[in-house]
Amino acid sequence: MKPMFTIEDLQQLVVDRLIQEARRIGQTQPVNLYQPIEYTLNMGGKRLRPAMLLMACDLFGGDVDQALNAAVAVEVFHNFTLLHDDIMDLADIRRNQPAVHKKYNENVAILSGDAMSIMAYQYLLKTESPAIQKITQLFSKTAMEVCEGQQYDMDFENQTSVSINDYLEMIRLKTAVLIAGSFKMGAQLAMAPDADADRIYGFGISLGLAFQLQDDLLDVFAEQVKFGKKTGGDILANKKTFLLLKALELANPEQKVQLNHWLNRKDFNPQEKIAAVKKIYTELNLQEISRQKSDEYYQSALKELQAVEAEINRKEPLILLAKTIMKREH
Amino acid sequence: MKPMFTIEDLQQLVVDRLIQEARRIGQTQPVNLYQPIEYTLNMGGKRLRPAMLLMACDLFGGDVDQALNAAVAVEVFHNFTLLHDDIMDLADIRRNQPAVHKKYNENVAILSGDAMSIMAYQYLLKTESPAIQKITQLFSKTAMEVCEGQQYDMDFENQTSVSINDYLEMIRLKTAVLIAGSFKMGAQLAMAPDADADRIYGFGISLGLAFQLQDDLLDVFAEQVKFGKKTGGDILANKKTFLLLKALELANPEQKVQLNHWLNRKDFNPQEKIAAVKKIYTELNLQEISRQKSDEYYQSALKELQAVEAEINRKEPLILLAKTIMKREH
Repeated sequence: MKPMFTIEDLQQLVVDRLIQEARRIGQTQPVNLYQPIEYTLNMGGKRLRPAMLLMACDLFGGDVDQALNAAVAVEVFHNFTLLHDDIMDLADIRRNQPAVHKKYNENVAILSGDAMSIMAYQYLLKTESPAIQKITQLFSKTAMEVCEGQQYDMDFENQTSVSINDYLEMIRLKTAVLIAGSFKMGAQLAMAPDADADRIYGFGISLGLAFQLQDDLLDVFAEQVKFGKKTGGDILANKKTFLLLKALELANPEQKVQLNHWLNRKDFNPQEKIAAVKKIYTELNLQEISRQKSDEYYQSALKELQAVEAEINRKEPLILLAKTIMKREH
Repeated sequence: MKPMFTIEDLQQLVVDRLIQEARRIGQTQPVNLYQPIEYTLNMGGKRLRPAMLLMACDLFGGDVDQALNAAVAVEVFHNFTLLHDDIMDLADIRRNQPAVHKKYNENVAILSGDAMSIMAYQYLLKTESPAIQKITQLFSKTAMEVCEGQQYDMDFENQTSVSINDYLEMIRLKTAVLIAGSFKMGAQLAMAPDADADRIYGFGISLGLAFQLQDDLLDVFAEQVKFGKKTGGDILANKKTFLLLKALELANPEQKVQLNHWLNRKDFNPQEKIAAVKKIYTELNLQEISRQKSDEYYQSALKELQAVEAEINRKEPLILLAKTIMKREH
């Protein structure tokens, strides 16, 4: 079998292709529809999902070049969801740049997002594969689930009681299925057996959950410099993360009063609120509990990968990827 | 060959299926995502586009039952575009009911629209056909063009000079391609030869343009009772229709001053503005000029249909459909 690509090789392949596509898109008429798409695709990001698709394709001996359109499809879709989410979440900044609805306006953001969703299908449908209908069905199911995840996330804002299971299901839909779907699409493009395609999907789900739990943790406990953005955002927004939900579950009466006080207070000093909530999280040992939960998912991800029928050395890039996105040294 | 379905048969088939699907969708979780889709699909409408798809399928001897998922896809997509257009156009009423962004809220309208667009693909991809990839590509191209049409329409609002060709290209994209695409998808499902699929597409484009020109005309000159909605809306909104653009082209200096006066005036009595602009249209014989233009397209639609390789009597439902939507007696 041919030597495998590194993650960096694959990310570079995707980046090069996206630059080329974004340029072409930006020159298409009507410019008010297509330039915001060029702007969005040029915002950057780690291009992890398309790289994951290509890695899974490579793992099963598929042709990475033939999978590139599907990889672009996944990235275009992901960027479409960010674009529309930013309208819904009133988020004005994305990757240190004005969000599309701020740089242009809301109508532009709605319509160019709609066009990106369709464009994702157009890239996918350029793919030549006997499995194209099955792959496009998986892509659609995944896309639908991402919408469901976003809806649950918005629902939770106005819901007083959210269980930890509800939360895990929400992040499964909003984050994990697109990672898992990218892996599985890559496997299907390589004509991997269904059982293995399902295992690599399972790997993606567990990895996605592990990653999101860790991201929630970093939002509170990271050193700001390493994290790259301000910490405490979730606390200020009363976001119902694993940490908050677990805290409400474990808190003693006094801690519960304190937590509810900060959740309900309209007028506060942001740093004071962050410090107070963080103090309760620390008292409840939540950094450790949350790390353990994330680690559970990480371990079951690796187990799923182990079960995949492929030479052990071909799995190394995927193990390395998992370590990298979990920021683990070992 | 088996006897053909009437338009009414096919509309009924679509209506029955949509009722069933809407009920199922409305019971899906999360309800805040899916109930607005049920609401939208239950708003009614003539279901012309899905019926057109089935008619073309029937014309070429295809299996109408097997084409039903594709027909539903086209209708779901069409309703998605109406839903998002209503947000962008600040339109609060759709088919005498509150628009989704009014009945629920804007975020709900954005996200459930996004989900409908994906759902349209899900229906289409249920279709079993050797041509499924080609058909899904045509559907995507059409969907993209509808977005382009909507963008041009919004662009024209802020553009001082719009040519009649610009306008015709806009309505081709915004209205005609989905009609044409529906016909062609039906033809492809029936495995019609490419040349015939292209001819039925051409039939749809010309018919769509004829219909839109007539609709613009009715917006000004219809008897309100027959038209079913208030006339003069386009005049009040300064919509750059064929009538207005042609009027600006043909007007004498005095008429041009009058027209520009009404276009620029911020404060006016609506009935007075409608009457004044309508008077200029009448002086310029625009009712006749516009009717002629629409008739040109109608005739070339029939010509395209004539060129289709099929028994003449199998084309009769399509000729009848064309007459019906053009409200013609002969």
